[in-house]
Amino acid sequence: MKSSNRIRTVRKTTGEVVAFSEDKLTRSLVRSGASKTQAQTIVARILPMLEEDTTTQQIYKRAFALLRKEQGYMASKYKLKKALFELGPTGFPFEIFIGEVLSHMGYNTQVGVQLQGHCVTHEVDVLALKEGHVSMVECKFHSDQSRTCDVKIPLYIKARFDDLTASGIHHQPGDITEGWVVTNTRFTKDAEQYGTCVGLRLLSWDFPKGNSLKDIIEQFGLHPLTCSTMLTKAEKQMLLDEKMVLSRDVLKHTSLLDKIGIRAPRKNRILNELAYLSNLTQV
Amino acid sequence: MKSSNRIRTVRKTTGEVVAFSEDKLTRSLVRSGASKTQAQTIVARILPMLEEDTTTQQIYKRAFALLRKEQGYMASKYKLKKALFELGPTGFPFEIFIGEVLSHMGYNTQVGVQLQGHCVTHEVDVLALKEGHVSMVECKFHSDQSRTCDVKIPLYIKARFDDLTASGIHHQPGDITEGWVVTNTRFTKDAEQYGTCVGLRLLSWDFPKGNSLKDIIEQFGLHPLTCSTMLTKAEKQMLLDEKMVLSRDVLKHTSLLDKIGIRAPRKNRILNELAYLSNLTQV
Repeated sequence: MKSSNRIRTVRKTTGEVVAFSEDKLTRSLVRSGASKTQAQTIVARILPMLEEDTTTQQIYKRAFALLRKEQGYMASKYKLKKALFELGPTGFPFEIFIGEVLSHMGYNTQVGVQLQGHCVTHEVDVLALKEGHVSMVECKFHSDQSRTCDVKIPLYIKARFDDLTASGIHHQPGDITEGWVVTNTRFTKDAEQYGTCVGLRLLSWDFPKGNSLKDIIEQFGLHPLTCSTMLTKAEKQMLLDEKMVLSRDVLKHTSLLDKIGIRAPRKNRILNELAYLSNLTQV
Repeated sequence: MKSSNRIRTVRKTTGEVVAFSEDKLTRSLVRSGASKTQAQTIVARILPMLEEDTTTQQIYKRAFALLRKEQGYMASKYKLKKALFELGPTGFPFEIFIGEVLSHMGYNTQVGVQLQGHCVTHEVDVLALKEGHVSMVECKFHSDQSRTCDVKIPLYIKARFDDLTASGIHHQPGDITEGWVVTNTRFTKDAEQYGTCVGLRLLSWDFPKGNSLKDIIEQFGLHPLTCSTMLTKAEKQMLLDEKMVLSRDVLKHTSLLDKIGIRAPRKNRILNELAYLSNLTQV
């Protein structure tokens, strides 16, 4: 906004009244590692706080405090990939997580459903219903980045899909028409090629491009609570044990923080961070 | 044989000539841990060696030496299950081993074959041809007993079979009509039920009963060289690196023992043990 670039006077510590330069502060913040947008946002938030007797020193101090806070929160968003690994060691919290992600995408979901196939009974990780179509969603959780989903994963999921659809049994909530494979790591080229070829929907950390698991999480603010930099590992585990996985879920059940022994003012700082992770408030 | 129970005289150390009792020697061997059949076999092998001046003491000494030797060899057969684990840590020697087992069952085999399926290229562990029928054989090697083959294994092998047979491509040496799943450990109940239901042939340490991997190995004398109690771990590894896996293979390539630095008389003792493991000679 041009208007925010108007000349505003501030008082130096010497008592001298000088013109305050927004551009100078913006450049200073950028030199400290802020993006241009971040710097401009911070400056825009500083200006209304200024009073007649605010000193240049106070302005800079406040601006850099906001940057540190923003960067701390940003760090918690940046660690999304690591946060997904922290849902382990078992695959169960990841299944609940994917169930929540699908719910936010408009599906009706059930996690961990036993269904009779033609040959055997299968446990389907997530059953997802939308507009009369039922998808079986298989989740493949890996606790480190080096483990990718090779072609065997979509192969066995295709055979499971075939066994369920060949059963002739009418499943609740309806006949399965689609199979998904979801992983927190990556698919091998073969796995991508095979899965796509047989009509499975694949979703991984970075696949499909523009609509990957990472993209969906960021778009809907579905960051797992393990992203938090303020909760301890033990506290995160206690919340996972309560079947909480999303940052935004904790915001709806704040009494859980009391239950696991977190008191104000720390509780408020944690809730602020979780809200930021959920795209629900700004810094 | 009744005739072997006839009275035979032997000389005691005192010079006294007495009747030699086969039953007494048999009972003595059984008390030392021999089976009744083993004891009888040993006694039957002792009798023709006896000369007029053989003493009772010499007879017993010789009989017990034979028992120790037999039990040593038996130990090497008993460790078959462990010997299969020792084919690891990679699954490759187990694939070669299964290729050899199938060859001895009358199949023409190729190990590690790349075949184009409808969606992707698959590496088939063993391709086995017999009477115009081609089987794809998938080998699942586990390096310890606690790892069983769960239902995901036959599931992905069924989907691989489907992708290969749906390709419409004429494979060499012919179109695949059967899928096998072979493991050195066990299948879970679900895996057995699913695999059997979709028409896969399953072969594990103890399945199917009476015609399991264990049964086939013992019947045809196809003990892997890792059964040997005389070869060191390093020597076994050197032979595996030369793509030798069966005890009987080493008997056909005895110069390999020279190559890895094994000299007579140890070489002869090792060859005797390997021959025993291959059901090719008796002790």
